[in-house]
This record gives sequence, C-alpha cells and structure tokens, in this order.
Amino acid sequence: MSKTKIVFIGAGSAVWSSTIIVDFILTPSLYGSEIVFVDIDEERLNLIYDFSRRYAREYKADYVFKKSLDRREVLEGADFVINAALAKGHSHYEVMRRVSEAHGYYRGINSVEWNMVSDYHTIWGYYQFKLALDIARDLEEKAPDAWLLQVANPVFELTTLLSRETKVKVVGLCHGHLGYLDLARTLNLDPSEVEVEMLGFNHVIWLTKFKYRGENAYPLIDEWIEKKSEDFWRSWRENQWNPFDIQMSPAAIDMYKAYGLFPIGDTVRGGTWKYHWNLGTKQYWYGPSGGPDSEIGWEVYLMYLNMRLNEIKRALADTSRPLSDTVEPVRSGEAIVPLIDSIVNDRRASYQVNVLNGDSIPGIPSDVAVEMPVIVDSKGVHRMSFGELPRRVYNLVLRPRLLRAEWAIEAFLEGGRDFLFEWLIRDPRTKSTEQVNNVIDDILKIPGNEEMAAHFK
Amino acid sequence: MSKTKIVFIGAGSAVWSSTIIVDFILTPSLYGSEIVFVDIDEERLNLIYDFSRRYAREYKADYVFKKSLDRREVLEGADFVINAALAKGHSHYEVMRRVSEAHGYYRGINSVEWNMVSDYHTIWGYYQFKLALDIARDLEEKAPDAWLLQVANPVFELTTLLSRETKVKVVGLCHGHLGYLDLARTLNLDPSEVEVEMLGFNHVIWLTKFKYRGENAYPLIDEWIEKKSEDFWRSWRENQWNPFDIQMSPAAIDMYKAYGLFPIGDTVRGGTWKYHWNLGTKQYWYGPSGGPDSEIGWEVYLMYLNMRLNEIKRALADTSRPLSDTVEPVRSGEAIVPLIDSIVNDRRASYQVNVLNGDSIPGIPSDVAVEMPVIVDSKGVHRMSFGELPRRVYNLVLRPRLLRAEWAIEAFLEGGRDFLFEWLIRDPRTKSTEQVNNVIDDILKIPGNEEMAAHFK
Repeated sequence: MSKTKIVFIGAGSAVWSSTIIVDFILTPSLYGSEIVFVDIDEERLNLIYDFSRRYAREYKADYVFKKSLDRREVLEGADFVINAALAKGHSHYEVMRRVSEAHGYYRGINSVEWNMVSDYHTIWGYYQFKLALDIARDLEEKAPDAWLLQVANPVFELTTLLSRETKVKVVGLCHGHLGYLDLARTLNLDPSEVEVEMLGFNHVIWLTKFKYRGENAYPLIDEWIEKKSEDFWRSWRENQWNPFDIQMSPAAIDMYKAYGLFPIGDTVRGGTWKYHWNLGTKQYWYGPSGGPDSEIGWEVYLMYLNMRLNEIKRALADTSRPLSDTVEPVRSGEAIVPLIDSIVNDRRASYQVNVLNGDSIPGIPSDVAVEMPVIVDSKGVHRMSFGELPRRVYNLVLRPRLLRAEWAIEAFLEGGRDFLFEWLIRDPRTKSTEQVNNVIDDILKIPGNEEMAAHFK
Repeated sequence: MSKTKIVFIGAGSAVWSSTIIVDFILTPSLYGSEIVFVDIDEERLNLIYDFSRRYAREYKADYVFKKSLDRREVLEGADFVINAALAKGHSHYEVMRRVSEAHGYYRGINSVEWNMVSDYHTIWGYYQFKLALDIARDLEEKAPDAWLLQVANPVFELTTLLSRETKVKVVGLCHGHLGYLDLARTLNLDPSEVEVEMLGFNHVIWLTKFKYRGENAYPLIDEWIEKKSEDFWRSWRENQWNPFDIQMSPAAIDMYKAYGLFPIGDTVRGGTWKYHWNLGTKQYWYGPSGGPDSEIGWEVYLMYLNMRLNEIKRALADTSRPLSDTVEPVRSGEAIVPLIDSIVNDRRASYQVNVLNGDSIPGIPSDVAVEMPVIVDSKGVHRMSFGELPRRVYNLVLRPRLLRAEWAIEAFLEGGRDFLFEWLIRDPRTKSTEQVNNVIDDILKIPGNEEMAAHFK
C-alpha cells in the first residue's frame, strides 16, 4: 500500500472531526497514511492533534499525524483534502442573525424557502464561499490530482461553485441521507433489508425508491401515517429531547403529502415559510424544540457543541481513562473515510454524494451539483442514471431551491448590492423596500464584514 | 388565390377587434377571404359583424363575413383561428381582485414578480386556460392544419400549454414589443434606421440588440439617461395622460441598470414588488397614473374600453358619416394580419412571435414558449438561433418568471388546493398561513367560481 496523504482543513471543529478520526482508526486498510490537520485556531488545532495521537496509540492504529496553521505549506502531495472549515465560526453568523431579526427577518436573511438550516450560509456566506474557493485554487496549484471532499456547508452551493470554477475533483458529502434509517426504525423495519434511493440537492433529497425485502415499502409509510402517527406524535411531543429528531415529524408527513415523495434528513428542516413563520409555527411542525432551526433548537445545538468540546478537553487532560470512554469507538456513518478507502484500496461501493449532475437526473442542468448515489472505486466516482422525479418536486422544490443557489453563487462571483436586494425583495418577510435597504446596510456595517461590504458595495 | 377561412374567436371585444378588421381591409392581398366571427355574447357579435360589413363596403374590400355563437359549428375548413377570447370578461377578475385585496393582496393574488399586468390571468385564470385548451382541442378535431393565433392573454402560459398539450400549430402574438418605437422616438432616432432584437418571454422581453444606422445604439440610451432623463420625467410627471406611457419611466431605467438590458413594452409593467408595493410606489416609478396596473391606471383603461365601445356603437348607428371617422383607416401595427398574409401569399418576413423555444434561445428549456423574431413564409414559422442573455436576466428574471408559469400550468392541469397554497406561501404580501387559506377560501366561494372551486378542491 502506498502512503496516502490526507489534509484535513478546519479540523479544529473537534466535536465533529474527532468522530472522523475514530473512523480512520477503525479502518486498518488505511493504516500507514499521513493525516495533516489544518486550522487557523492553534488551540483547537492542538486539541484534535493531541486527541488523534492518543486515540491512535490506544488502538495501536498506525497513522502519521501532522499539523499546520497554514494549508499552503502542507497541501503538496495530498491525495485527499477534507474541507470542514467554517469561515469566521458560528458566532459571526449569529451576529448577522440578530441584526436581521431587528429588521423583521426571523432567523436571518439567509433563511429562505428550502434552506432554513441555521448554518447553511449562502447569501451571507461570502467568507465561507471565498475560503472554499481559495482552498480549491490552492489545490489546483499544489495538488491538482487530489480529491477535495467538501463537507463544510453549504455543500450544495460550494460543490457547484468549486466544480464550475476550478478543475479540482470535488465531492460534497453530508450524512443527512441517513435519516432514512429513522424512517425504517419507526416503521419497525430491519435496516439491512431496506433498499433506498434518494435524489435531489443536498438538504433537499427525496425518497425515490423505498423497498423492504424487495417490495415497495411506501404503503408501509401510508399505513403508519393512518394508524400510528397520532400516537407517535403524542409521545414525541412529550419526550423530544433532541431538536434534530424530526424525521417523522408532522412537517415531514405534510411535505410527503404535498410533494408526493418522502423527504429525508435535513430536507425536513426546509420547506416554505408554512413551517417556519415563528417559534409557534415551528413547534407545531417540529415538536417542542421547534426543530434544530428555531431559536430554542439552534441554541441547544450550539450549547451541545460547547459542552461536547469541553468533554473532549477534559478527557484529554485525564490520562487515567481511555479516550474511548468519551468518544466511542464506533463508526460515525459518515462517508468520508469509507470513500477514501474505496478509492485508495479499490473497494468498489456505492455512496451518497454531491457531484455535478451531468446527465444523471433528468430535468436538472448538467452543471449543478446533485445529491445521489454513485459507485466509487480506485478509478474514481462513477455516475449512474435515474428516472424523472415528480413534476411537483421539480417545480415546487428543486427549481426554486436551485434559483436561490444560483443567486447566491452569482452574488459571490459578481458582487454588487443588487444581488442582496433581489434576494430580499422576493422574501415573504419583506414588507417594504426600505426594510430591504436598511437590513442590508446594517449587516454590511457589522464589524468583521468590511471585506464583504466592499464586495457588495 | 384560394379562398382563405379565418375564424375570429372572441371577436366581440370590439374595441380591439375593430382595429384588426381595419388591418384586413387595408390588405387587398387577402381579399376574397372568409372571416367568421365567434362570440358567446350575441349583441357584441352583431356589433363587430355589422361594423366589419359596413367598413368593408365603405372601402370596397372584398371579404365574406359570417358570424356564429358556437365555434364548433364553424371551425371546419379554417386556415387560421384567432383566439382573442377572455373567459368570463374583465368584471369577473375585478371581483377576484377585490376579494384578494380584502385579505392583503394588493392588485390580487394573480399579481406576482414579473407579472403585474392586470389582465394577464395565470393562477386565477382557470376558465381562461380551459377555454383556450378547449378551442385548441376543437381545432385538433375539426381543422388540424389550421394555425392558431393566440392573442388572448396570458400569451406566455397559453402558448406553452397549448403547444405542449395539443398538436395544433400555435403562435402567440402581442404588440408589446412595439415599445421599442417609443424608445427610438424619445432618443430622436428615425425608426426606419433602427435595428432591434428582443428576446425573452411574452411581457418579459429584453433589448438584446439595438443598432442605429448600423452602430450599437445603447450608448445613446446611456447618454439620454445621464443628460435628459430628469427633464423628460419632470414634464412627463406633469403631463402623463395615458397610463401606458411608461416605456421611458424611471421603472424602465431602473430595470435596465439592475439587469443590464433595456426592458421593452409590457416588460416595464413587471419587475419585483420594488415597483409595486402600493399606489405611492407605483406612482414613483410609473408616473401620476401609477402605470396601467395601479387602481387608477387600470380603471382608466377599463373606462376607456367602455367609452370606445360606445363610440363604435354610436358610429354604427349614425349612417350619415363614414365609420373611418371613428376608427381610423391606419394599420394597427399588430402582427396578426401581416402574418396571415405572409403565410397565405408567401410573403417572407420577420415577426416577433411566441412559439416553443426549441433550441433558439440558449438556457431556456425547449418546451417553453419564448418571444423572439422568426421568419414566416408559406411554409410556416422558421426559428432562428440567438446568443445567450446576461446571467442576471436568466437568474433574476426569466427563470423566476418561468417558475410561476410552470406553477400556473401545473395548477390548471392537475388541480388541487396545494397549488394555490404554494403560489401564495412564497408571496411577499403573505404574512401568515391563515391569510393564505382565507383568501383561497373566499376566492373559491365567489359566485361563478363553482367549477374552479371543484378543480382546486
């Protein structure tokens, strides 16, 4: 086995990257590889570096770990680059959200139909788009044959942007499609006998095939809705503790009825304002937390991240107990490590990924990143072909979502205030032209947004 | 010359159809043709029939005029069918507009970005869509080789719908593109030396080519804006008497600046809510009338129609003076009669029409009706090919407009309340889900909407 070099950018998001490190450690076929962590936050960088070295030692996993504050120093020779970086960190976007809300834009100007996810930064994601594109351009220069695994959001926009603007081999990855397992579990199906196909855009995927033991299982969903959903929701409303527990929420069932296919994973977090007007509306559709993207659910999530980070720090400081007491040695279910394994060791397998459509899904332009299953082996990513989705899914979901993606990409590439204006003038929260102009002014005035303000001048 | 049969459906809209009759009378190369008027309003039918017979007699124009209350009786053998019918007449839509406004939907739920035209009935045009499709189906049965000239609005949606759903040869026609003459006149250009190309969808067309004496004339627009627009607007604000006089309005100039091409004709009536929030906004952008689609401008237009109808009635009753004193013997500028002449007499010429795109305009699906120049001769309509439009025009104008067209067409074909709901839940005038449900309920309860209510149940 040749030595594989993996550069992990934004690895300082230790809560998440620690689970990926565990995946590596549980994958002996990649032993011998070099994993280089990159982050601009030195403390966080050291944290994941120390964590990985110790976890690997405990498991006798043979990896060479390195670290750097400057990606350009370490990209050369990379076979894989994982981009998990969130430019400016969560807190900056929370400031923009607060400023937006002062102007009547509940949950921020970034939240729109089919993208209500609180850290899927598109129109206000200037720094995030720029970072991702800079990384891809660095790869073109320093490691043109490397695979870029884009896991930082917004996966849909960034996979599309980077694939269009650079020659890099970009694959966007997201674990959201695993929501189908919640569906199977709720229907009491043995997951190993479930066959699924999910198509669409990242965070906007639809269950186009659902079989159980070879038979169409959609009737089982219909039966569950008819006979069991009310009881399920009664208990769920009393007991929901995880705001992300919404795969079988009334929102999901309502979307299924409206659009004809079952929405999977983060798709349920989207939809029109019907599900999102305010906290009360969100609670009706997503349970007492209001779902992950309410002011309650999102705060819970951000607090969870901090809490978990502290747990990892404490575990690292405490050498009396193995790290695996804190971060369990189980596979995360993320596709990153298995996919690298498939390419490095020619283990042909199917993955749910985001890549440019080509002619895989009819009715979607070829230069738009779709989320779909592909086959991966040492030769790379092999697209398949799929049937048409229902017209409602195209017209009411995918095409409107695609428009917003194109606007965000164009806003990033071209600059100019017009794009922010056009974004907001069509928003149901907008009541006047002044409101649009005022919120734009105030967001661009936020400290830290100087470069973005110049871009959108 | 073989005898040509032309069936004119909805001819009872005498104000407009009288101008088309004048075109026929001024076109000797079509003499000998049979023109059959159809309308369900017998009084109106007799009016246009009597008008035409007398006008033709005065001009010694050799046409055979006939009339019928039932199109199915007269379609057989037709070479051309002009569909100018507005199902249910203006007043019905004014009732729907009033009901909408009681729920906070200024100018009605039908008005949306890029379709603010007051009689361009799409989402609430159920009866209009049905009538147009029924006429096309009758043609398939009774006169499958006839040309269907679709002049009744919404030309964009109906040309697309009829072309997709039937085998009829459909051509949508609209005189809106003649707005370029206003532009030329304002710039003091000799119209005969102006060369233009306008592309897009009906009512959403953009000046993709503008030459004067062979040179690019866009700089003349820029110069006018810089040096003359303020003076022009000062006088125009004082003197505007025709609400349709908006080709050089601040709205047009603002759209030009925002999207990069000059908007022509009814395009200026569109745009986002930026131009349309309320009467004050409309007056700012369209002059003291608020443009044709304000509560003032539209009322002026409807009153004008009535006044003009009465003038025609009076002229018919007064045999002491020729009809041409009331309806001038000048060509209307409408393409209908010249286009028929081109086909019948093989007079090869260029026309601005609406037909399915095929591969004429890049970036627009082939099965969508575009408005563009074509060549017409006895062999029919010949498409040409054009270059790409600016990305802003696609992303911010044409694609959003197309989405609304697809929603309206789908709503008509599929039925079900969901489509009305989805239409409104994305509307900036919508503030709550209840508002959406209430306005739908009340519109469907309007007397005369029973069949539409069943369709959208």
